[in-house]
Amino acid sequence: MVKESLIRGLLIEDRRSISRCISLTENDDEVASEILKKLSNRIGQAYRIGITGPPGAGKSTITNQLTKLLKNNNHKVGIIAVDPTSPFTGGALLGDRVRMSDIGNDDKVFIRSMATRGSLGGLSKKAIDAADILDAAGFDFIILETVGVGQSELDIAKSADTTIVVLVPESGDSVQAMKAGLMEIADIFVLNKSDRPGSQQAVTALKTILMMRDHTEESWLPEIIKTTASEALGINDLLNEINRHRQFMLKSKLFQLKRQKQIKIRIKEIVDDRLKKKLWTESVEESLESSLEHVVLGNMSPYQIAEDILEKFKNHIV
Amino acid sequence: MVKESLIRGLLIEDRRSISRCISLTENDDEVASEILKKLSNRIGQAYRIGITGPPGAGKSTITNQLTKLLKNNNHKVGIIAVDPTSPFTGGALLGDRVRMSDIGNDDKVFIRSMATRGSLGGLSKKAIDAADILDAAGFDFIILETVGVGQSELDIAKSADTTIVVLVPESGDSVQAMKAGLMEIADIFVLNKSDRPGSQQAVTALKTILMMRDHTEESWLPEIIKTTASEALGINDLLNEINRHRQFMLKSKLFQLKRQKQIKIRIKEIVDDRLKKKLWTESVEESLESSLEHVVLGNMSPYQIAEDILEKFKNHIV
Repeated sequence: MVKESLIRGLLIEDRRSISRCISLTENDDEVASEILKKLSNRIGQAYRIGITGPPGAGKSTITNQLTKLLKNNNHKVGIIAVDPTSPFTGGALLGDRVRMSDIGNDDKVFIRSMATRGSLGGLSKKAIDAADILDAAGFDFIILETVGVGQSELDIAKSADTTIVVLVPESGDSVQAMKAGLMEIADIFVLNKSDRPGSQQAVTALKTILMMRDHTEESWLPEIIKTTASEALGINDLLNEINRHRQFMLKSKLFQLKRQKQIKIRIKEIVDDRLKKKLWTESVEESLESSLEHVVLGNMSPYQIAEDILEKFKNHIV
Repeated sequence: MVKESLIRGLLIEDRRSISRCISLTENDDEVASEILKKLSNRIGQAYRIGITGPPGAGKSTITNQLTKLLKNNNHKVGIIAVDPTSPFTGGALLGDRVRMSDIGNDDKVFIRSMATRGSLGGLSKKAIDAADILDAAGFDFIILETVGVGQSELDIAKSADTTIVVLVPESGDSVQAMKAGLMEIADIFVLNKSDRPGSQQAVTALKTILMMRDHTEESWLPEIIKTTASEALGINDLLNEINRHRQFMLKSKLFQLKRQKQIKIRIKEIVDDRLKKKLWTESVEESLESSLEHVVLGNMSPYQIAEDILEKFKNHIV
């Protein structure tokens, strides 16, 4: 059986099996969830780091530098990079191969890009599945790298144990709203390209915003780490800060609570996703299609049609 | 009955009834959907304009100027402004009152802000419900104004008949990814604050990107309108372009098709939303809560728990 052989492959860290499993997850194949069910006792050992921020902030450079450092400390690192897909070209901006050549292609690192491909539906579920697969395969650290645009991508970054938000001095006004979402999820801020002008003002501005955040004496206060990732400056400080956050979480029992919260969100997504798939069969889609005209003409309400569909589903589900 | 009196109120354009109806929708009250069902034959007359773009581009100034112009042409205008909510203060950045004083508080204009309040769940459904309520109440134009960050907010802008994307010369790199999403939904581009330096380069850059967009001879090609909204410059051109797009859509039958497509998305949202509400009862939430620990410890898989919940729901729904 495919399933059994893939599981065996994962257990011996066979790269082709890992790749194959992630592809199954991307294609929403049920075999992937069967495998994850079987391996549940192997999942949860890896430490997960989320890296997000606006486009151009240098997230992938930071991911690469951090990976090199972890590798030097004898850790195995899995990377899930959720790349924005241009609506015009349809391809990921940055290929796995280009990145591999920078980090070094060996058994200690596994990189996988997942493209957003227009609709973001189910993306966070798939990315977290992929992280679980790498976790089960025995990687020590898993880095989830996403662009901080869109709810799904923030959800992925938030699913990590430590979430890092990368900004640059010139992020400024235009990412104000993004920042609002990013502010809430950051455990650590990185000000990258901090050799550029305006870097100290950016740190001050960030600190001001952070002060307004609700916090008690027991809560974690994000630090701002200055890096110049292209020259590997500040990466050691970043790793130290990640470890400090990890220790803080473990001591305060927040670690367990955070993971429970994330698992809850995850289960809800799986449930809602499966329910949708059960409901929206081809024939339901067709009957919806044929009633749209009546709504445009004002003869029917969207609510009426929605209720009819639900009524039919109720009679169908058992 | 509340419902009947609200319907009567809407039919005579009573402002308090309109306000009340929108509040019911915001609170997910079923009375709101009952009212919309009753009034389906009154919905679909208004022309809907979506205005979106990055924070600080001047969307609300453009909305205000456009509203003044439409009012002068004897049209009634309803505005739904989806304001970003700061995660720290919890309030909308821009109050309805401030805006009212600019446009003029009379019977021809109705403004309503809807805050995003952290989670974006159901926001697009609620905003479009609010637009339907204004439509039923007899407004000629409805402007849906949102920040172009996040999927829900793009969904709202997309739900309009004509979608306007507002940019400024300095939008540049940091909104690159936002733009990718924005590019696809724009029927008209506005380059606001076009008296600033870099304006001509921004137009050229936009045109280059637009040329890459798939299009045939019959398809609509978005124009770029230069405005300085704070001084009411270019607003006439913008209104002319909106009318040109409207005529184009009507002639090519795209109008009907676009509305059908939007209604389809809407019905699906309503169905999925109601199904979720049926499923996630308090007792299901509780049983989920109590199983989370087992997942953290690796004794159970999220997939196993999800399947158990679905199985129970199946037995419960009839």
